[in-house]
Amino acid sequence: MNNLTLIQAVKDQKPLVHNITNQVVMNFSANGLYAIGAQPVMAHAREEVVEMASNANALVLNIGTLTGELVDSMILAGQAANKKGTPVVLDPVGVGATHFRTEAAKRIIDTVQLTAIRGNAGEISQLAGIDAEVRGVDATGEIDRIEVAKKAQRELDIPIIVTGETDVIVTEEKCLELNNGTPLMTQVTGTGCLLTAVVAAFLSVSETTLDGLVAAVSFYTIAAEVAAQTVTSPGSFQVAFLDALSEVGIDDCQKRLQIIREERS
Amino acid sequence: MNNLTLIQAVKDQKPLVHNITNQVVMNFSANGLYAIGAQPVMAHAREEVVEMASNANALVLNIGTLTGELVDSMILAGQAANKKGTPVVLDPVGVGATHFRTEAAKRIIDTVQLTAIRGNAGEISQLAGIDAEVRGVDATGEIDRIEVAKKAQRELDIPIIVTGETDVIVTEEKCLELNNGTPLMTQVTGTGCLLTAVVAAFLSVSETTLDGLVAAVSFYTIAAEVAAQTVTSPGSFQVAFLDALSEVGIDDCQKRLQIIREERS
Amino acid sequence: MNNLTLIQAVKDQKPLVHNITNQVVMNFSANGLYAIGAQPVMAHAREEVVEMASNANALVLNIGTLTGELVDSMILAGQAANKKGTPVVLDPVGVGATHFRTEAAKRIIDTVQLTAIRGNAGEISQLAGIDAEVRGVDATGEIDRIEVAKKAQRELDIPIIVTGETDVIVTEEKCLELNNGTPLMTQVTGTGCLLTAVVAAFLSVSETTLDGLVAAVSFYTIAAEVAAQTVTSPGSFQVAFLDALSEVGIDDCQKRLQIIREERS
Repeated sequence: MNNLTLIQAVKDQKPLVHNITNQVVMNFSANGLYAIGAQPVMAHAREEVVEMASNANALVLNIGTLTGELVDSMILAGQAANKKGTPVVLDPVGVGATHFRTEAAKRIIDTVQLTAIRGNAGEISQLAGIDAEVRGVDATGEIDRIEVAKKAQRELDIPIIVTGETDVIVTEEKCLELNNGTPLMTQVTGTGCLLTAVVAAFLSVSETTLDGLVAAVSFYTIAAEVAAQTVTSPGSFQVAFLDALSEVGIDDCQKRLQIIREERS
Repeated sequence: MNNLTLIQAVKDQKPLVHNITNQVVMNFSANGLYAIGAQPVMAHAREEVVEMASNANALVLNIGTLTGELVDSMILAGQAANKKGTPVVLDPVGVGATHFRTEAAKRIIDTVQLTAIRGNAGEISQLAGIDAEVRGVDATGEIDRIEVAKKAQRELDIPIIVTGETDVIVTEEKCLELNNGTPLMTQVTGTGCLLTAVVAAFLSVSETTLDGLVAAVSFYTIAAEVAAQTVTSPGSFQVAFLDALSEVGIDDCQKRLQIIREERS
Repeated sequence: MNNLTLIQAVKDQKPLVHNITNQVVMNFSANGLYAIGAQPVMAHAREEVVEMASNANALVLNIGTLTGELVDSMILAGQAANKKGTPVVLDPVGVGATHFRTEAAKRIIDTVQLTAIRGNAGEISQLAGIDAEVRGVDATGEIDRIEVAKKAQRELDIPIIVTGETDVIVTEEKCLELNNGTPLMTQVTGTGCLLTAVVAAFLSVSETTLDGLVAAVSFYTIAAEVAAQTVTSPGSFQVAFLDALSEVGIDDCQKRLQIIREERS
């Protein structure tokens, strides 16, 4: 898997990842980005987001603890990134849980050119116009992640990552299903949000979007898997996961990578 | 103690706990709620709090890093929860330290029907109209927690938890004093705030308020006690505590529970 | 080193440290302050910052996730602290990365009497009017920290700490260079911000500014060094560092302290 060399490219290029993200995961996202060798910056004031995004190598828009002002900042930052050709990744946390989040996600999708969207099956269903129950910010019920990802990619014409028991990546060309990770990820807040930030970092050093998405998701879930080898509870897992994100290399990934589906989309 | 079965009820029912809380403890509160098997959501924009609170199983109002907008959001969310009969728990962080916090707490108490209030002796003294020194957000000086809790419960007609070296619960019917926990809890930020969130989760699966309060406080402080068996410093304690919150079960609690006072109030 | 007795003075006096700080590091800063024996409070609403700062023993102004409202609050709090003679320490996070941060830092410096400023070489260069590249919030490139610190101290007439591979302290009287710490500090978000808060705590119990700065920086970096003896990765380091901040005492510091330069400034 040649795209796994992107793990090293992040460490070498230390991309500056500008996060406009939620207050719950800011610390964990910053620490996770440092762990993989990227350089995080959090900034959300409308007075500075254009300048910050223009100088960054990637932009993360995460609607987890949204306000009206933050939506405006996200759109300003997103459009500034677009002007520079900088990758922009959206994490539509809890979209569908309230009308406010749903409208905000739509406004962002309509006004910013997104490089990718990452969410759980419930969130991506909402964006794809599939009727799914969303309570709070966690996925509920049984949803076919592959169908959801494909429909969202077609409807929005944006590469999609749907994470869950397996992780599905759908771009215009390909649909992949990856089977790495650990259920402990669902017991620590921000593991989805941090993946979105890691995806942004990888996209900034990748030639193609597909390579960036596959490398980011596989590396990230394999690091989680490695961390789960030594711990069984969520407090310890969070610590071990940050450690693993800084330690896991190409070799570990090549040994553990489980692509269980790969087809034209 | 039959009410300890609520520990399992939280895991089975996975209550959605809506938190309007302070920026210091958002991450720790979310991780603590996941650890006990509940489902946290943080949302504070006035555009969405009514909808989020209406769909939640419990609501936490925490005035730790308050702004004027947040007070409005808390009242909107609280009244929405009241309409649905959803438990609402207030954490009056630092009330008395500034007039702004004191007025905000009063406004919330006057306009929202609270299921319980949890605070330290200084904070609850303020609400009870007892003159106590409050500097910052930590309890200072010697205050009789039982007297404070009883007076606050009578004045406000709301069940009260006063936490400290021992923890006091006073409802209309009963006054209990529990003697579990560890001094390490005072060295980690947010241990009080997270207890408030855990109380909210337990109340959402409990038939009576008293049962919910006793089960939540005893389970939580016993988990802290278990965590403190293996660590002596605050960094490690925070991790071990999150682990213990996910591991400690009814048996541990039955063995360790120390109710040192139980009387009609 | 007599000023190392300040380590114990913090534990004895438990100074209340009021932080108006960024959302990324609030939790880590609060936990770090508890670990050293201080008492943190986070409050930023303009309705309460004057009252909170007036009652605090030290004030931290950190512009990491700035908004226009926060700048106003910082100035109000800073002036209230000035009236009481309370130490005020500025952390100019990411100054130079955007015009908004640069203007904000200048406004604070112009309107509040600061006891000290702590930043990395890029940030302090900006304040000193030296042309340095600042992208995001991390130091980039090779800058002579001693020159930068001396120039900033002269231009602003405020004691300066420049942190990096070695740490430089410059006051009106002296220039010191300390050589403790570990590279792991650069892999955990908020290690600079927490040092600023620790400096504020030490200043509140110190008779002279120089003593407070030297004791805070040496104690803090030595605790990091001690933590790094047992761990090699950033997740574990964060935990071990909080532990070490609560454990490291005068003896450890005396053994490990490396002042590699001390001269009149």
